[in-house]
Amino acid sequence: MTTNTSDASVIDKAPAHNSMAPEDTAELRKLYADFEAMHLMPLWTQLGSLMPMHPAPQAIPYIWKWSQLYPLAKRSGDLVPVGRGGERRALGLGNPGLGGRPYISPTLWAAIQYLGPKETAPEHRHAQNAFRFVVDGEGVWTVVNGDPVRMSRGDFLLTPGWCFHGHQNITDKPMAWLDGLDVPFAYQNDVGFFEFGSEKLSDETTPDLSRSERLWCHPGLRPLSGVKDTPNTPIGAYRWEHTDRALAEQLLLEKEGFPGVFEPGHAAVRFVNPTTGGDVMSTIRAQFHRLRPGTATPTRRVVGSSVFQVFEGRGSVVLDGTEHKLDIGDLFVVPSWVSWSLQAETQFDLFHFSDAPIMERLNFARTVIE
Amino acid sequence: MTTNTSDASVIDKAPAHNSMAPEDTAELRKLYADFEAMHLMPLWTQLGSLMPMHPAPQAIPYIWKWSQLYPLAKRSGDLVPVGRGGERRALGLGNPGLGGRPYISPTLWAAIQYLGPKETAPEHRHAQNAFRFVVDGEGVWTVVNGDPVRMSRGDFLLTPGWCFHGHQNITDKPMAWLDGLDVPFAYQNDVGFFEFGSEKLSDETTPDLSRSERLWCHPGLRPLSGVKDTPNTPIGAYRWEHTDRALAEQLLLEKEGFPGVFEPGHAAVRFVNPTTGGDVMSTIRAQFHRLRPGTATPTRRVVGSSVFQVFEGRGSVVLDGTEHKLDIGDLFVVPSWVSWSLQAETQFDLFHFSDAPIMERLNFARTVIE
Amino acid sequence: MTTNTSDASVIDKAPAHNSMAPEDTAELRKLYADFEAMHLMPLWTQLGSLMPMHPAPQAIPYIWKWSQLYPLAKRSGDLVPVGRGGERRALGLGNPGLGGRPYISPTLWAAIQYLGPKETAPEHRHAQNAFRFVVDGEGVWTVVNGDPVRMSRGDFLLTPGWCFHGHQNITDKPMAWLDGLDVPFAYQNDVGFFEFGSEKLSDETTPDLSRSERLWCHPGLRPLSGVKDTPNTPIGAYRWEHTDRALAEQLLLEKEGFPGVFEPGHAAVRFVNPTTGGDVMSTIRAQFHRLRPGTATPTRRVVGSSVFQVFEGRGSVVLDGTEHKLDIGDLFVVPSWVSWSLQAETQFDLFHFSDAPIMERLNFARTVIE
Amino acid sequence: MTTNTSDASVIDKAPAHNSMAPEDTAELRKLYADFEAMHLMPLWTQLGSLMPMHPAPQAIPYIWKWSQLYPLAKRSGDLVPVGRGGERRALGLGNPGLGGRPYISPTLWAAIQYLGPKETAPEHRHAQNAFRFVVDGEGVWTVVNGDPVRMSRGDFLLTPGWCFHGHQNITDKPMAWLDGLDVPFAYQNDVGFFEFGSEKLSDETTPDLSRSERLWCHPGLRPLSGVKDTPNTPIGAYRWEHTDRALAEQLLLEKEGFPGVFEPGHAAVRFVNPTTGGDVMSTIRAQFHRLRPGTATPTRRVVGSSVFQVFEGRGSVVLDGTEHKLDIGDLFVVPSWVSWSLQAETQFDLFHFSDAPIMERLNFARTVIE
Repeated sequence: MTTNTSDASVIDKAPAHNSMAPEDTAELRKLYADFEAMHLMPLWTQLGSLMPMHPAPQAIPYIWKWSQLYPLAKRSGDLVPVGRGGERRALGLGNPGLGGRPYISPTLWAAIQYLGPKETAPEHRHAQNAFRFVVDGEGVWTVVNGDPVRMSRGDFLLTPGWCFHGHQNITDKPMAWLDGLDVPFAYQNDVGFFEFGSEKLSDETTPDLSRSERLWCHPGLRPLSGVKDTPNTPIGAYRWEHTDRALAEQLLLEKEGFPGVFEPGHAAVRFVNPTTGGDVMSTIRAQFHRLRPGTATPTRRVVGSSVFQVFEGRGSVVLDGTEHKLDIGDLFVVPSWVSWSLQAETQFDLFHFSDAPIMERLNFARTVIE
Repeated sequence: MTTNTSDASVIDKAPAHNSMAPEDTAELRKLYADFEAMHLMPLWTQLGSLMPMHPAPQAIPYIWKWSQLYPLAKRSGDLVPVGRGGERRALGLGNPGLGGRPYISPTLWAAIQYLGPKETAPEHRHAQNAFRFVVDGEGVWTVVNGDPVRMSRGDFLLTPGWCFHGHQNITDKPMAWLDGLDVPFAYQNDVGFFEFGSEKLSDETTPDLSRSERLWCHPGLRPLSGVKDTPNTPIGAYRWEHTDRALAEQLLLEKEGFPGVFEPGHAAVRFVNPTTGGDVMSTIRAQFHRLRPGTATPTRRVVGSSVFQVFEGRGSVVLDGTEHKLDIGDLFVVPSWVSWSLQAETQFDLFHFSDAPIMERLNFARTVIE
Repeated sequence: MTTNTSDASVIDKAPAHNSMAPEDTAELRKLYADFEAMHLMPLWTQLGSLMPMHPAPQAIPYIWKWSQLYPLAKRSGDLVPVGRGGERRALGLGNPGLGGRPYISPTLWAAIQYLGPKETAPEHRHAQNAFRFVVDGEGVWTVVNGDPVRMSRGDFLLTPGWCFHGHQNITDKPMAWLDGLDVPFAYQNDVGFFEFGSEKLSDETTPDLSRSERLWCHPGLRPLSGVKDTPNTPIGAYRWEHTDRALAEQLLLEKEGFPGVFEPGHAAVRFVNPTTGGDVMSTIRAQFHRLRPGTATPTRRVVGSSVFQVFEGRGSVVLDGTEHKLDIGDLFVVPSWVSWSLQAETQFDLFHFSDAPIMERLNFARTVIE
Repeated sequence: MTTNTSDASVIDKAPAHNSMAPEDTAELRKLYADFEAMHLMPLWTQLGSLMPMHPAPQAIPYIWKWSQLYPLAKRSGDLVPVGRGGERRALGLGNPGLGGRPYISPTLWAAIQYLGPKETAPEHRHAQNAFRFVVDGEGVWTVVNGDPVRMSRGDFLLTPGWCFHGHQNITDKPMAWLDGLDVPFAYQNDVGFFEFGSEKLSDETTPDLSRSERLWCHPGLRPLSGVKDTPNTPIGAYRWEHTDRALAEQLLLEKEGFPGVFEPGHAAVRFVNPTTGGDVMSTIRAQFHRLRPGTATPTRRVVGSSVFQVFEGRGSVVLDGTEHKLDIGDLFVVPSWVSWSLQAETQFDLFHFSDAPIMERLNFARTVIE
């Protein structure tokens, strides 16, 4: 099954021969040298790599184990102070195919951020869009444009582009979480701005609910003071209790014989901007998936890259034909057009983010189900 | 303060004289007779009434008292059976300015529907968009496209165009509620279709939550099975507990010194379609307002007509300069361009619906705050 | 073939019996009298007419012959002066089914406007949207927001809502044309505003091209000074030479074996707003059709009303099964859901306008091809 | 003057000190080694370069002289055959700051393509969006999805993503033109697909107008066979005669005292998709600018990169404060946030393309006028 215009069976039929390979003469060498001097590059010598038959990412599919990530984050907490200048104790997951750059994919940044007891990460803002997902723990508040937002297990939290934000841990225990941003995309395309803010948090209170939630998190209700659409979601935190219940209801509906699940045995929700019903931010899609024990999703290829983190349960992912076992907290990246399928041993909950809004808004989206 | 292009101070400067009034001759009389025979009407004799300087509705501002409405609905329950053919025991509120037609305004229908103990109103569907608002009572389920939806005090319920729907009262007590539709608009513009469905409800179960709520009423979460936008909201019921809490939070935020209320002392939410963030249906806007005791809203004129029903508390409305006292259940209509202001004696809760989506989508919307 | 959700074969299955007809008792009479006193109307007694099984317009299909219209317009020119107060020497075509109101349909106004030699119709503006179509003649300039626009045979001219406009005839000959507006819709829904402007035209020059055309009528080119979208088209005149050529090319492409025509033998263009690609105004769609000799269009039913004027050639229209011969200048109206088909004797050119944007924006559009 | 949220005066206030620089100990070295082994990169050591205070492109502003480009293209024509495999005799302009990659900016590819007498470049298609702009010459036809499109001086021609296309030169003279694509963006983000097509052109006729123009290039007229919006423009060629006239009219309107020009002395048009009024393709904006002799544009900084080619006249560009003289055919690139101003010696015509649709659709657009 193919959506969009692609016919996967045809597009690999490349000719074996380049009819534009001229004879190697002194004249030609001189021409190529002159090209170089003039900062010109012939297309005919590099077409195949520049414009492959289908996406041929340098990024590779890769898994990071939580059992290894967390101890390293903890050691950073012991050795590296957090503060102004470095700004965040965050460990970027660098795709091994991307030559040592801290990019999990060409578009996405994923990092484990670690905040020790009583520590504060100072306020700043940037054009890059950011979110946090809490695989475990509690006790940190992130302050977004002056609004303190509690961070707890399973919560999905937003700091869209150009919002000031800082974090504080009010407890005696450290906390770690997943940060996701469009840093590589912003860097590559030269769109980033950055500004330092207050070193102390602008609001040190620790309310249970942020003001953004109190205003916006009532299903189907839009405050009349907010009827103008915003490019990013106005909601600061999507709480686990809602996500959990939404997924549970989909599986119940399926059991009762009604529509609701995304595919058989596979419940899924997208986090959305309530002013538009669209993605939470202009570059990042975020979703949550829950599979019944024993469920395997169809094998898909999608244009654009995705990152998953296991939140609960046990299962595996098959990436380009290779199966990888997954435990709680494990992260993996699916580069563009790499085939993937999830397999659930127990009930299997995964957080998922991707650059799908970029692909859809720029008309590059394609999906094939094999 | 004026939004849009209107300058209210200028637009009433009409000339006193029609320079196109020709001398009354036999030739002219013959011409006018020939016009009539050919089904032609001269503009110059009727311009002023056809194209007034500002909206000059035939509909008048009017109040219906719940203390009079409910007893009449009850008497209907005793005398008129409910069933196929007549379909609904609904009493349409007819604007006294609209010549005996059952229209509360040129666009909107409002009616009190009454369902006795154990009665069933059979299923049907129509192109007209409909909602229900429950000012009091419980015990009725409305079945929308096969999904049973509980109706309870304060709930706002949807049956958008071309959805099958019927109602059953499972209790020993009667129940009455407000129906709102775009019947006059549909009738006037010849867009209505109607189809009879099952006489018996297609699902007689009485769950606490409809399937639509279980799938859609999780704040900021969109099921992946429903990522295609729909013209009408997929939510069958907006529950009072959410509306109440959303309004309470706005007033609390105001008290704490933060943004949130629509105007000082005036909390308000709009019921929206979660797939778009826009109005619940293509022709009808629905909102809920809560005023602090003592609050008076600014005096507004708006293009398009509105209907309010008092849900809780006591206050008044000033319509074109005349104050009307209001009690729970009372309904009033504000025709186009009639000035209105709400005044709260106690905390004052009002349900509100209007034809604003028509005005906005067709570029006729204007508001003046006086 | 049916678009949308309607199944025409089902929707007429109405029950013969109204089970809600109660016994006629004194008590019931008293109840009905009390209803009347309270301005309440029972739905069960009028459901069938209020909410018919499909659109059952009071407006009827009707033809006006140009050979009769023009002489009457001319006689008006002799007997009725044009000027301030009456504003326009316009003869509204009143649908015989609409009880003497100057409405060609519930939404649309169509009129023949007549301007004698050297006459001026003074400037004014109104919220109602207006256009003109010139079936014959030349020599009049319409001034829209200060921009003089030449009116010539075949041209389609725009005066969207709230633009000042007036007309002058600079020649020694009279000129008549078709005016189309949304006057009935605006009147019915109380959205109209009106303002008198200058009695003398604000610009009496008579350029060949309006400034709007000089800025906007270059195919696929948008001025950088106009990159903000506007609800109405910024183009003042759509010239016949362009319309003619567009239609001719479609028929040529068909002859050459390529896509382009709307249906076999039927070329058609829609006049659009270049800032959006959508309809020229928020309430009125305008199109031009050209049929090859011998072509008959499929029989269609459409929700919403249409008006056609023959521009060139000879043919007929079949309206609800009855054929009507048509000559140049003849006008006919197709009320909602009335079936229609065009038949071309010679090459057959028709101007066409409708309320389709209302139907589409409000989600009431349906079409059936029989 | 600043549009968007940026305050250029504030955003450069970076702290001089990184408080997260820990003491260099054996333990820390071990930690950093373990990071590397686990493919983790600390944010705190690279924040400044990854997330600069404002865009700090590696690409540099650069000028290519036509007087040097064309002779090299000609020499390629003599030495390198054109055909299947290499596909195109195109010389990519490689930004000297981008390390030898054939990218004029991180998002855009610009190349001089050269086709000798009677040569054919075979058909293929790719997900990458492409256009051509003809600075001089004629005699080539490009066949886009089977539709032959004449290429002549001043024309702007489209081959949007996934359209088959090939070129043939039917004359005895060579022809060169500018190709613009989103190759770097597609490569970087792994969205490219490629498919070979016919080696011979699928249609070798050489009509004056393409079928796309015959169907779509009538101002304000949309074929009824094409009322569904398309993501890319359906127009194959935007002809110089229209562009020239549109620009001339803007300058005339300015002279007459009316609005029309983009800024004083500066006429400009955007090439748009007539189905939406938006950009011709999802990733590339194309515009044409004409300056009166003596005009200097304000100095701007814009997020995203632009390329200009001089079409006619003489002038200069000031890039980050340095002036560069420009002659016909000269090309220059303005990387993101580099300040630029055009200065016209004679009447000065420039073709201009950019990645602005990417920036706008993803909410990264910012402009500052200094």
